Amino acid sequence: MDARPPSRVEGAVAHIRDRIATRTLAHGARLPSVRELAEKLGVSKSTVVEAYERLAAEGAVVARRGSGFFVAGPARPLAPAPADPPPEPAIDPSWINQHAMMGLPDFLCPGAGWLPDSWVLDLGVQRALRLAARDGAHRRRQYDEPMGFAPLRRLFSVRLAERDVLVDPDQVIVTDSCSQALDLVCRFLLRPGDTVVVDDPCYFNFLSLLKANRANVVAAPLAPDGPDVEALERLIIEHRPRLYLTNAGLQNPTGATLSPAKAHRVLRLAEDYDLLILEDDTFGDFEPEPAIRLAGLDGLRRVVQVGSATKAVGAATRCGYIAAAADWIGPLVDLKLATSMGNSVTGAAMIHRVLTESNYRRHLDALRGKAADAMGHALRKLRAHGLEPWIEPRAGIFLWARLPDGIAAADVARYSLTKKVLLAPGPAFSASDLGRGCLRFNVARCVEPRIFEVLDDAIAAAPRGGS
Amino acid sequence: MDARPPSRVEGAVAHIRDRIATRTLAHGARLPSVRELAEKLGVSKSTVVEAYERLAAEGAVVARRGSGFFVAGPARPLAPAPADPPPEPAIDPSWINQHAMMGLPDFLCPGAGWLPDSWVLDLGVQRALRLAARDGAHRRRQYDEPMGFAPLRRLFSVRLAERDVLVDPDQVIVTDSCSQALDLVCRFLLRPGDTVVVDDPCYFNFLSLLKANRANVVAAPLAPDGPDVEALERLIIEHRPRLYLTNAGLQNPTGATLSPAKAHRVLRLAEDYDLLILEDDTFGDFEPEPAIRLAGLDGLRRVVQVGSATKAVGAATRCGYIAAAADWIGPLVDLKLATSMGNSVTGAAMIHRVLTESNYRRHLDALRGKAADAMGHALRKLRAHGLEPWIEPRAGIFLWARLPDGIAAADVARYSLTKKVLLAPGPAFSASDLGRGCLRFNVARCVEPRIFEVLDDAIAAAPRGGS
Repeated sequence: MDARPPSRVEGAVAHIRDRIATRTLAHGARLPSVRELAEKLGVSKSTVVEAYERLAAEGAVVARRGSGFFVAGPARPLAPAPADPPPEPAIDPSWINQHAMMGLPDFLCPGAGWLPDSWVLDLGVQRALRLAARDGAHRRRQYDEPMGFAPLRRLFSVRLAERDVLVDPDQVIVTDSCSQALDLVCRFLLRPGDTVVVDDPCYFNFLSLLKANRANVVAAPLAPDGPDVEALERLIIEHRPRLYLTNAGLQNPTGATLSPAKAHRVLRLAEDYDLLILEDDTFGDFEPEPAIRLAGLDGLRRVVQVGSATKAVGAATRCGYIAAAADWIGPLVDLKLATSMGNSVTGAAMIHRVLTESNYRRHLDALRGKAADAMGHALRKLRAHGLEPWIEPRAGIFLWARLPDGIAAADVARYSLTKKVLLAPGPAFSASDLGRGCLRFNVARCVEPRIFEVLDDAIAAAPRGGS
Repeated sequence: MDARPPSRVEGAVAHIRDRIATRTLAHGARLPSVRELAEKLGVSKSTVVEAYERLAAEGAVVARRGSGFFVAGPARPLAPAPADPPPEPAIDPSWINQHAMMGLPDFLCPGAGWLPDSWVLDLGVQRALRLAARDGAHRRRQYDEPMGFAPLRRLFSVRLAERDVLVDPDQVIVTDSCSQALDLVCRFLLRPGDTVVVDDPCYFNFLSLLKANRANVVAAPLAPDGPDVEALERLIIEHRPRLYLTNAGLQNPTGATLSPAKAHRVLRLAEDYDLLILEDDTFGDFEPEPAIRLAGLDGLRRVVQVGSATKAVGAATRCGYIAAAADWIGPLVDLKLATSMGNSVTGAAMIHRVLTESNYRRHLDALRGKAADAMGHALRKLRAHGLEPWIEPRAGIFLWARLPDGIAAADVARYSLTKKVLLAPGPAFSASDLGRGCLRFNVARCVEPRIFEVLDDAIAAAPRGGS
């Protein structure tokens, strides 16, 4: 007798599949009970259970709580998911996100895009919650005003002015996150099939967001002082994009900074070719001195700026903003209400409190100092382990580094995951060759020596000229 | 000499307009200083200021903080706003929303869709904030898990089971609001140009939401026990819709309840014509006994259910959920991350605490009692003032009532607004003749006698056969 359990399971699977195919078991019919089929086929009950579970996993049957297994209904056409299943799980943006956000126990996450908990815990969210309970913004109103909490809009307007983006509070909309702000602006400005230019490399969630908005994406190579303007112009002429989506201040994933001369040339291109610009200022709080903003240079005529209030606060309560031309505000607010009915006023009031606490600026100063130290450390360590930083960013938490020649970032990331180290492989940020051999490091999360040990092993294990 | 100041202002406006038109003042050029133009035209400085402000209001010039007025840039083509400007401001959904959400001082708002503050203030959001500060969910993680706070997903699964919707916690996604849940499902299931059936009348924000999703909308007449199934089938055959978007439990705006027989026939239609169903269970907490749910009847195969956790809690912190087929969860989570990077964990943890407090069920019982009393009161008052309720809803807070023949709800709403009473006119809920003469009342907000005095006056003032 054949003792291999898999073949018994496979036999039971084949038996049921056959009965479904011949309609002996019709759609919706209950499968034989586990005991019944085990007796009939002369196998153990656990073999039948495994067979049924395998059929359930492939969707041929469905389990119903307390009542057994049933033949699945006729396959109905599923919607084309805006986010299709990734062809290569290990390099998909949502893969990084979802793993990082799961807070996997014992994992080290130099690939995660946010600060370690220990960097933000002293920030007084706890105090803000306690004070919020006392001051009771939740008592004064339920739904927030359509544009968002007015004191926070005024505060954003002041913070923007510090970066030479002069904007009236009535041109500022509060959102529940910077991601929501980005999405609202894309939904407002783009029609399905419109083309959008991004930087190569760019923040990986830009690509998911644009896919969800059914936009075509083209990528312009990034130089350390901003986009390659000649390449950008060629792309514009060829593809006639409607929008250029880029970062302000500190670019994600490279930490690059737009120079004033590049900013002027980019804005001239936008004016000449009637291109709109969406500028994401998520990491502005990490700059020692603000770099030039396209939104400021343009006076918010064809540039929209979005940003986050909480990158330096911690993401447990999230908050973002949109700053745009006055005549775009009405339709953007309509869209915000249609798709969310407005932001959470409790959260907005809490964030306002945190940002106006007397120790907030000291906190930012301390963060910048810690990030600068961590950047120096990461630069040294990465070079010592054979990786070459693309640039030495002037500030921020991101470092974009190239692996030794012929090593694929996807291979390194896959290997590291088995060793409980979550990396951010380049193909998530760049569809071009550039991304293939690069990784993004969050320098605030590169302290543990084990990261570099795993990196060594991953590089040693990776095939040369690998996937 | 002509002493009318307006003509001096108009003269100054015309002078500048002329100089812009002839390009004496080019796009982007600085306007003469106020003093300069006042001297040149021999008018007062305040006349020039008023002229400049009028030009700014119409967009011909822009004010820049501290540096004066400048000629506005060339008009650039604005994006076609997903929410176009309403042709009739007084009956546009966003008009109701935005007015109601502004919390206008001294206004009575029987048209607002949520409970009065005094009905939810005793609910312990304050206590939840204080306890959240102590327990520190914000300390344990920053970004929430991609699917949302696990204890809350388990709680939703239990609450759904009480309504005979049997769903595993792994089929539940937490969202920042029910509106976001609706939007995510629409983005997942619909392509631009797809047709969606709604009830006639339906919740007004469904129409804004579907517009934002670029869907075509057809409406099936609603009967007190659910949709008119014959009419629904005719619409399905004619328009081949992809989705039927409806309410579970208590319909908005009518308070109608789907009967089991109707539920079965609707689901049969959906199966026969491969129609998907999105069921919005926002007002389930207000039912004394749960009515049948399409999601439960169908076992979440072609029905997706979304709902709100906070209709009975107050909307200062918002929270919603999606319950869907297991194989839809992955792409829905991807879409949630792409467009928001996840919900706020502080908010989700707070809501979980509120919903599991020992007094929460007592609060719901008390709310239902208050709503029932308010319903009786509103029915009597509306009839006494010449309005005819469409049905007497078994529960909930909404009453859909018809004005005397020939009176248009839009006229009544416009008049009432001038008397600081915000109504919800029928055309926001129904594009058909039905909506023209109806209003939706929130019975929890129909206590003040002044509402009915204003209603009397508005009806008396309205033209017969009006707009």
